[in-house]
This record gives sequence, C-alpha cells and structure tokens, in this order.
Amino acid sequence: MEFAITFKGDISPKRTVALCQQAEVAGFKYAWLFDSHVLWRECYVTMAMCMEHTDTLRYGPCVTNPGVRDWSVAASMFATLAQQSGGRFDMGVGRGDSSRRVLGRKPLTVETMVEFCDAVRGMIRGDTVRYDEDTAEVQIPWADGFELPVWIAAYGPKALAAAGAHADGLILQMADPWLCQWFIGQAMEGGLAAGRDMSGYRVMSAAPAWVGDMDKARDQTRWFPAMVGNHVADIVEKYGKSSDEVPQRLTDYIAGRKGYDYHHHADINADHLGFITDDIIDSFGVLGTAEQHVAKIKELEAAGVTQFNIYLMCGEEERILAEYAEHILPHFQ
Amino acid sequence: MEFAITFKGDISPKRTVALCQQAEVAGFKYAWLFDSHVLWRECYVTMAMCMEHTDTLRYGPCVTNPGVRDWSVAASMFATLAQQSGGRFDMGVGRGDSSRRVLGRKPLTVETMVEFCDAVRGMIRGDTVRYDEDTAEVQIPWADGFELPVWIAAYGPKALAAAGAHADGLILQMADPWLCQWFIGQAMEGGLAAGRDMSGYRVMSAAPAWVGDMDKARDQTRWFPAMVGNHVADIVEKYGKSSDEVPQRLTDYIAGRKGYDYHHHADINADHLGFITDDIIDSFGVLGTAEQHVAKIKELEAAGVTQFNIYLMCGEEERILAEYAEHILPHFQ
Amino acid sequence: MEFAITFKGDISPKRTVALCQQAEVAGFKYAWLFDSHVLWRECYVTMAMCMEHTDTLRYGPCVTNPGVRDWSVAASMFATLAQQSGGRFDMGVGRGDSSRRVLGRKPLTVETMVEFCDAVRGMIRGDTVRYDEDTAEVQIPWADGFELPVWIAAYGPKALAAAGAHADGLILQMADPWLCQWFIGQAMEGGLAAGRDMSGYRVMSAAPAWVGDMDKARDQTRWFPAMVGNHVADIVEKYGKSSDEVPQRLTDYIAGRKGYDYHHHADINADHLGFITDDIIDSFGVLGTAEQHVAKIKELEAAGVTQFNIYLMCGEEERILAEYAEHILPHFQ
Amino acid sequence: MEFAITFKGDISPKRTVALCQQAEVAGFKYAWLFDSHVLWRECYVTMAMCMEHTDTLRYGPCVTNPGVRDWSVAASMFATLAQQSGGRFDMGVGRGDSSRRVLGRKPLTVETMVEFCDAVRGMIRGDTVRYDEDTAEVQIPWADGFELPVWIAAYGPKALAAAGAHADGLILQMADPWLCQWFIGQAMEGGLAAGRDMSGYRVMSAAPAWVGDMDKARDQTRWFPAMVGNHVADIVEKYGKSSDEVPQRLTDYIAGRKGYDYHHHADINADHLGFITDDIIDSFGVLGTAEQHVAKIKELEAAGVTQFNIYLMCGEEERILAEYAEHILPHFQ
Repeated sequence: MEFAITFKGDISPKRTVALCQQAEVAGFKYAWLFDSHVLWRECYVTMAMCMEHTDTLRYGPCVTNPGVRDWSVAASMFATLAQQSGGRFDMGVGRGDSSRRVLGRKPLTVETMVEFCDAVRGMIRGDTVRYDEDTAEVQIPWADGFELPVWIAAYGPKALAAAGAHADGLILQMADPWLCQWFIGQAMEGGLAAGRDMSGYRVMSAAPAWVGDMDKARDQTRWFPAMVGNHVADIVEKYGKSSDEVPQRLTDYIAGRKGYDYHHHADINADHLGFITDDIIDSFGVLGTAEQHVAKIKELEAAGVTQFNIYLMCGEEERILAEYAEHILPHFQ
Repeated sequence: MEFAITFKGDISPKRTVALCQQAEVAGFKYAWLFDSHVLWRECYVTMAMCMEHTDTLRYGPCVTNPGVRDWSVAASMFATLAQQSGGRFDMGVGRGDSSRRVLGRKPLTVETMVEFCDAVRGMIRGDTVRYDEDTAEVQIPWADGFELPVWIAAYGPKALAAAGAHADGLILQMADPWLCQWFIGQAMEGGLAAGRDMSGYRVMSAAPAWVGDMDKARDQTRWFPAMVGNHVADIVEKYGKSSDEVPQRLTDYIAGRKGYDYHHHADINADHLGFITDDIIDSFGVLGTAEQHVAKIKELEAAGVTQFNIYLMCGEEERILAEYAEHILPHFQ
Repeated sequence: MEFAITFKGDISPKRTVALCQQAEVAGFKYAWLFDSHVLWRECYVTMAMCMEHTDTLRYGPCVTNPGVRDWSVAASMFATLAQQSGGRFDMGVGRGDSSRRVLGRKPLTVETMVEFCDAVRGMIRGDTVRYDEDTAEVQIPWADGFELPVWIAAYGPKALAAAGAHADGLILQMADPWLCQWFIGQAMEGGLAAGRDMSGYRVMSAAPAWVGDMDKARDQTRWFPAMVGNHVADIVEKYGKSSDEVPQRLTDYIAGRKGYDYHHHADINADHLGFITDDIIDSFGVLGTAEQHVAKIKELEAAGVTQFNIYLMCGEEERILAEYAEHILPHFQ
Repeated sequence: MEFAITFKGDISPKRTVALCQQAEVAGFKYAWLFDSHVLWRECYVTMAMCMEHTDTLRYGPCVTNPGVRDWSVAASMFATLAQQSGGRFDMGVGRGDSSRRVLGRKPLTVETMVEFCDAVRGMIRGDTVRYDEDTAEVQIPWADGFELPVWIAAYGPKALAAAGAHADGLILQMADPWLCQWFIGQAMEGGLAAGRDMSGYRVMSAAPAWVGDMDKARDQTRWFPAMVGNHVADIVEKYGKSSDEVPQRLTDYIAGRKGYDYHHHADINADHLGFITDDIIDSFGVLGTAEQHVAKIKELEAAGVTQFNIYLMCGEEERILAEYAEHILPHFQ
C-alpha cells in the first residue's frame, strides 16, 4: 500500500509547501491536487512550486479533464512539469466535473477522455499527434520520451472499462471496501478484455481521513459522500436504479439527495449535506482511532486498492499527516 | 531605465533558475518568458519554479494570447502565480502569433485581445465576469484583489492605440530608437484619446543583445529581424506599403522576405534568414562593445523606452548577463 | 506571548527543515537549537540550512558557551548567520554544560560568560576587541553593525543577576510558574541594580510540551527534570540546601538524585531518571489537554514569561506542533 | 581534469549562491571556501547555505587548520555538513596561515596537522578518539561512517611528504606547471615511501584565472603571487636559499619582498604587491585568451594536476565562470 494526499487548492502556498515536505518526510509517495481552476487556485503552478521543495514526492492532478485547455497546452504543461521534477508527474483524469460545471458546461464523454489520454501521452512522448480536425498536427520538439503515467477516475461501467483498458491506474473516489472491490472488478475485466496484463495495475482509493473522535470525524467529512453523490446520481440516471450494473448499496444513499451547489464543492459547510447518513460517512471515508484506520486500509488492500489517498481538506491537516506518519504508515511497511 | 531578460523556454530548468538568480543579483527587474507552448516548454510552470528561487524578480509571459486556454483558466493561473510570489506577476499579451500558428490557427483580433485583458484583470481582481455567451459568469472566490499589470505587444496602428488606451505598458519587439519613438507616439495618442494620464506609462523595448565582436554579434542575432518581419509583413499587407501609417524604414527591410517557417521561430540556425541585411540587424538589436550598448540604450531612453528587455537566447547567456551587470547597468543607476 | 521550538539535533536534516516550515506557517517566532556538538549534530550549519527554507523564523543556539571555539570564530559564525538570514539570529548562552562535560571539562564562570557576550557582541558590531591577552586585537572588517540579541541561561543567583544586567533576555529551562517568577525577580533586580530599563526585557520558559494523555505525557518528558537537576544540584552544592537564596521547592526534588550520565543527556530512555516524581514532571513541563496547555502558559505569562519555547524532542513532533497551531496559539493572539 | 572554484567569503550570500548554481550548471565539481574567519565571512555556514541550492557540487574549506576550533567541534561541523548534503563535503587543510596570523598566532606544525586529519577523520567515521590529553575520549554517537576525503595544502618538503603519506589529495596554490610537477613529485615520493598506492591520488592546482586582455589580467591577479610569497618565504627561511630542496625559480621571485600585511590578504588593492613581476604573475595564474587557458591547463594536466581550482576573487566572477563554461571546460570532456 502506498500513501498519498490530495489538496484542493485553498491552503496558502507556503502551508501547501510545508505540508508536502511533511508528507515526503513521513513516507507519502504522492501529492495530488484538484484541477478545478475557478473554485481553487490553479493546480499546475502550485505543483511546480511544490516540486522545488521536495525530492521524491510525485504530483499530478486528481483529476484534470479534456475540456478547459487546448490539448497541446495540457501536454506541454505536463511535459514541462515532468522535466522540471525529474519525472515526478502523473496525470489523473476524468470527464470534467466541477472544473466544467462552474462554467456552465457538461462533462465530456468517456470516448473523449480516452482520446485525450492518448493524445496527451503521445505529445509528451514526442509523437506527431493530430487531436482535432481544425488543428494542425502537433509534434513537441523538446519532448524527451517521457511515458506519462495515467490514472482514470471512474464510477460508471463505461468509464471503469475504459480505465482498465487505457490507463495505468484507476481512481476511486471513496473508501468503501465492498464498493471498491466491485468497481475494481469492472476495471480489471475491461483491461483483460482489451488483452492487457493487469498484474501491475494500480488502484487508488481517495477519501477523507480523520483520526480522532467519531462525532467530530463525521462533521468534518460529511461533505464527501455528498460530493460523491453527484457522480452516483449521474450513474443512476443513466443506468437506472434497479440495473444489474449499479448495486443497491450505491444508489440507496442518494435517494434523499435534493440538489448540489457546485460553488460549495468539497466544502465542509455546504448546505446540501442533509441527505447524508452517518452510516454512509463512515463507509465512504476513513475515520476513528488509528487502529480503525489501519484496519480499514487493510480491508481496502484486500479489496485490491494499492494507494490510499487522503483528501487532506477536512481541517487539522498537519495533525492528520502526523498521525498517519506515527501510527498508521508503519503498519504498511 | 529598468532591465529585463526574456527566455524562450529551451534552456534547461536548472540553468533557467540559475540565470534568474544571476539576473536578480545583477539588478534586473523582470524575467519574461515566451508563451508558445509547442515550440518551447510551457512558461507558467517554469515561472512558478523560478519564483521559488528568487525574491524580487518579476515574471510574466511575453507574450500570451487569448486563444489557447479558456480565459478563466488563464485568469486562475495568473492569479495563483501572483499569490505564490507575493504579487510578482505581470501579463504581456498579443493577438497570438507562434503559439497559434503552429496549431494552424490565425492570430485573433485586437478587439478580442482587449476583451481578454479586461476579463482576465476582472477575474483576478475578484469581479464577476461573463466573457463568453456559452459560459456561465465566473467569479473566483479566492481572488484577493490583485491588480494585474498588463503590457500589450503591438506593431500596427490599431494595436498601438489599444495598448495606449487599455494597458499599463507597451511591448515593442525591437530596439531601433527611431521606430520605437514612432510606435510610442501612436500608443501615447491612443491613451490620450481615451482620456488617460500617460505620465506613468511604461514602454518595453525587447531585443537581442550581444556584447562583443560585431561579426559574431550579427551571426547570433540575425534571426531576430526575421522574426519581427512576420509582424511587419502583416502590417504592410494590411495598411499598404506606401501608407502614411507605415514608415518606409519599416517596410523596406521585408522587401526580400520569402517565407518563414514557424517551426524555426527565434532559431539562430533557421533557413529563412537570407533577406536580413547587416544594417537591419544592427538597428533592431543591441550589439557591440559595452560602450555601444550604453549609448544605444540611452538613445532608447530618449525615445521614451522605460524597460530594456534582453532576448536572452543568442548563446553565451551567462556571459551576456555578466557583461550587462559589470559594464552596462551601472550607467543607468 | 511568543512561541518557539527547540531541536536537539537528532532529527534528520530534511525533517528538521520541514518542522521549521511547519512552525513558521503556524506562527512560531523562533527555532532554537542545542549547541552540544558531540551529542548531536552541529547546530550552526543546521541553522544555516533551515534559514534557507524559511522567511521569518529566527534562530539561535539554546545555548552556546564560551569554551569550545575561539571567540572570534564564534563571532564570525554568528555574524555570517545574521548576514545570510537578514538578521534572524539571536544568541542564547550559558556557562557550558553538556558541550563541555562530554569533553571532560567543567563549565566556565559567570564572569567569563559575560566577557564572552561583550566580546562577541562587539566583534559582530564591528568593534575592535581584545578578548585574550595572547591574541591580537580583532576587528571584523566585513561586520555590518548588527546588534546581536543575547539571552543568558541562568539558575543560580549570580547568573541570574548577570542575565539581568548584561542580556536582552533570560532563558529559564523549566515551566514551573512559581519558580519562573522567583528566577525572573532576581534577574530583574540584577538589571535594575545595573541601572537598566527592564521594561522590554524578555524571558523565555523552555520546557517539553506534550498534548494528550497524562501517563504518556509523563513517560515522554521524565528526562527533562532529570536534566534540569544537574543545574539545580550545582546550585544547591554552591549555595547550600537551606540557603535563603534557593527555595526548598527547587532543592527537594533532587534529594533522590544519584548521578547523571551526560551521554544520555535529554534522552527519553536514560537510566538516570529514577528520582523524578510525577509531581515534578507535571510542574516542570507543559502537559495534558490543549486547555491545560493554554491555562499553564497563561500562568507563565502572568509570572513574567514572554516566550514559551517547546523542547521539541519528546516524540510525535509534527503532531505537537499541529496541536499548538490549531488549539493553543490562537489563544495568545 | 575536474574544475573547481574558490570563494574568499566577501561576495554577498545571495550572489555566492547564484555563483554556485552557475558553476554547477556549467559542470564544475567543487566550490571551495577560504577558512579565515576574521578576514571573511565564516565559511561553514556559507557552505551549508549553498548546499541547499545545489545538488552535485561538493564543498570544503581550502583550507582549514587545526588551531582555531576544538577538534571535536571541527569534526562535528564537518560530519553535519556531510549529512546535510548527502556526503558532498571534503576537507582541505593546512598548518594555519591567515586564520591564525590575524589573531597573532603562528602556524602549527606538520605533525599537528597530520594528527588533526587523523582525529577528525576518525571522529567523523564514528571511532572513539582521544586527541588531547586534557580532553576525554570522544565518540560521536550520530556518526554514520562517512569517510572524509582530505586534501593537504603544502609547499615545503615535510608538508609535501605528509600530503602524500596521509591525504587523498594535494593542494598546490599556484599554476606554474614546472613547479607543480616538482611539488607533486615530492608528494608522490612521500606516499610511495609510506607504502600507499598512489594511482588514484588527486592534485589540485589553485590559482586565479582571468580570461581577457593580459594587462588587465595582471592587474587583477598580482595579489596572488604576493600571497604565495608568504609560504615561499617560510620555506626559504627554513631550508635556505641555495638548498637542493628549494628550486631557484621559487626563491628568486621573493627576493624583493618587503613585508606582507595579512589584513590585505588576497586583496587586489594591497600595498605589498610591488615586488611581483609580470613574469611571475603569468606563471602563477592562468591568464589571457580562452585558448591560452586551455593550453596552460593541458600543461598542468601533463604535470600531474587532476583539478584546476579557480580562485574566483579577481572581479567579473560571473563572466569568468561563463567563459570557462563556454570556451574552456568543453576541451576537457
């Protein structure tokens, strides 16, 4: 099990750097950043800053999308970050959620997301790529052959299959072991169907973690299942509540959902959290004593998760990292 | 007179940082970067890196354009750079030259460029901005009121007037004092016509500088008038060779021009340099002994230039900086 | 009340830097380092390293002594640190405890310590100083007039009087409010007797802090009163147990003391901790819930302490800093 | 041939860092610093600072001496620098020249210098060492087995033999190929007599370098043979002018020497430079066109020198580094 953190881009630049250093010293492997440029600070120049103050920590968006930058701009930026950091850059990607919705736009299709992955990987490697009929072929003359690791974020059957078939890793935004296993199975099937060797496939479970009292833990992380609910609602809408493809466990919790204000995305104090039950909070995040964290992360490991990624945005971030460093990571080494 | 350097993004990251530090120690005020993401490394993550290793040097694109990123992405990135650096970010902007041409696209209009300036400035300040009818209003919740300094790059009458009316500074990509004065006059008229107080208006002359033997100096900088020729050709095409609005001095030199390969933009070894005469090289750049540099920069100063910006991309970059630090800057303090 | 941390020099360089950044972000004002070069890493090159990664945090030895470096070497080193950091260097000084004892040498006299302060301050300022009859006069030609802030560590009456008369601040290695007040009174008298204005006099209480369960807290900090016991034993030996000059509260606790191994100085697992009672641990350190910390530091403040300095060497250092940042510092702003 | 630079500690901290980065990018392997704490800023905290801004450059004093710090303090400081930098620390050492003379003290004996090397190497490695009868045995508990590379500075027969027998490298403060060869021969004999394999033995030639006009070059470097003259005068005094052990070439040039003011050590504008002839300047330094530098360094290489170390203290330091990077280092790769 490797450990990661994710920032949403609202912590001061200086504190962000200090947290990255604390995480690196503690043995964390990745610092991911939300790529949602209106809601929070732009993540790529933040990564560039943090890279200068760390030696081994890897960085990447969790997640970017194909719909707010020209694809050659994305490729150039990612390739530059890789060159500046000695290759410490991965791309997490999805169809475009909050980054697009706050602009009044919809997520893109799974197909577009896969094309984006291929185009960006190709341009970063140095291939000549045509990604748009109205745009000339692009070949980055300073590319150095870097093979961009790609992680795809998925909930729905189609995206899961695409993640298995086209990515190095799968991003699951939740820490419910049963659901993780169910999602991972679909990605694996997708990969095998595409004829890939899935033995080195990587799976990230991304979720808030709170070490301490359970009541406080729930208060600090209630926003998370609400956020996940957006994606679940999309799936339920598309595949139907009673579909074989969507487990009842996943659909039940959004039954009481009444709307979601993207301007309070990932916000502890949002107004749209009413429908979230304690049961769902406990299941989607990692909460409680250090022992409870260790036990749950072991369950995730058994379910096929290879990276536990803390959504470090619930308060007392330095303490949470410190608790992980002292009491939790040592159980996974 | 303040001094600046410009990188095109082909110098290794580590060397770029070292040059920024050398420049800062030497008393330079700005490090500008070309924003042409296919030809060279992406400039914003490079700036973010350099900011971490300097304290006073200001950074900015020289120049960006409205046509390769969603405008809210640009605003978010610039605002983040300003926050990370304690406000050390300016925007240089043009209509989109090499950044768009290598993608098979044309420059945008002066009107679009001006709208872009207004929208980006507004979003960075924290205003609610609608910049596109298909896009929702954007308000960056983490904006902190930063007033983005904007420099507009211009050659043609319309762009010059716009620079005077809408920007804090004018970017002139050449160091011919007569032409600079002629351009500056137009920008000033544009500003006065718009009712602005132009007393604090800033004017950058950007050009290659080579301290040393003239033959070598010409070999190293011949690419520059060729690059400028693209813009001049546009103007001549638009306004006519014998127009009152375009001086003969400017049009004559492109008479022999036969084509330009954007894949060898700003390239010392390009094949499209044949039509450039020594006279034009000497006039457009700053070449020769330290004394000659001092004399020419004094002429520029007399013509209304407030910032001399070295295009630091002609070889022996550390030595050029060192010569300026030892022998040239002291004459302007 | 200002807050500080102290390292003993056994935390890895990289983690030391990360902790300094965490402390600076959290609002701490000083990072002190033990100067005991055999037991732990040399503190001055560690400070030089940390200074490069922080902007406002001040540094200094807590404490150095006059007896292991030529005084001009000490002055040169301190002046260089001040110049490298923009003046972020203070000197804490004592008579020489573990730094000398591990070399088989005894502490020096209070007189020598005071002479050292004067000589070092003078050399750093740029004065011509003769500090040793066998040594030529020294004048540091590159001195820039920096006025070195000096803090004197004291327990005994003579040292306390000297601290009041000759230093900018007093270092008290303990957090018992009653004793602190008693010590501070003596320093103040010393200062007033010397005709000084004591209104801006600074007083540091340095002690371990542990936020959490009391049993664990005592286990992690038992080494501290044992360490302080060395100094108390010296005083008792010199002034007598029943002297008016030494309160019974101070002497009683060392009654059971049986020896002290300097090779396990400030060591949680030392063998010489048997004589320390829970009562003394609780009194000398700051332990328990965040509320208990706030209450005790308020008591220290009332007793005249102006800086609470955490001996950050009891384990879970990142968490302790985080608890202070989240729950304790906000009560003192 | 590897290349190095040496600072004397009078360049501002920020500029020192920038020069180290420029040197590292250019392919230099070492940055040495004078250890003469009164005349210039203290070199070890300067090294610690520079280490934080470089990745591969090695650092060390050129040279330290056994007579201004307790030997355990020196060992602790060097071990800490090695740990902070990932082992990028070497020790250059001599008998104590300006560092001691400005304090009115004499250099120590070759025997003492050799004992110092052994003691410091041992303590840094983690051995238990007794280096002084009045001092307890010292064992640094945090030592990590680092094997300190030691370079001995020598001119006289005894020191040269000691350098060959006891050090990893020899420091020759001059760039006269004939004299270097003569010195190197003696060190090699010393090493072979001690039964060592001298095949990997390293030899540094340290001298000023000036690329450019010869008249200016001589003006900027005249101080250097004057400084070397102190050492030569010592040798001549000890071994006699007509001794077989001292070549006439070496003694002749100091015939006109009339005194030396250590407060203007290594100072371009000192008053004691009158006796230095152009011939000696040309011979002791490396001056003239880039081609002349290449030719002379090739001669030094043929004479057995393995590292050319530029005394970077003659003015226009950035330009000198740049000239070496562009025009000289490429001839030795």
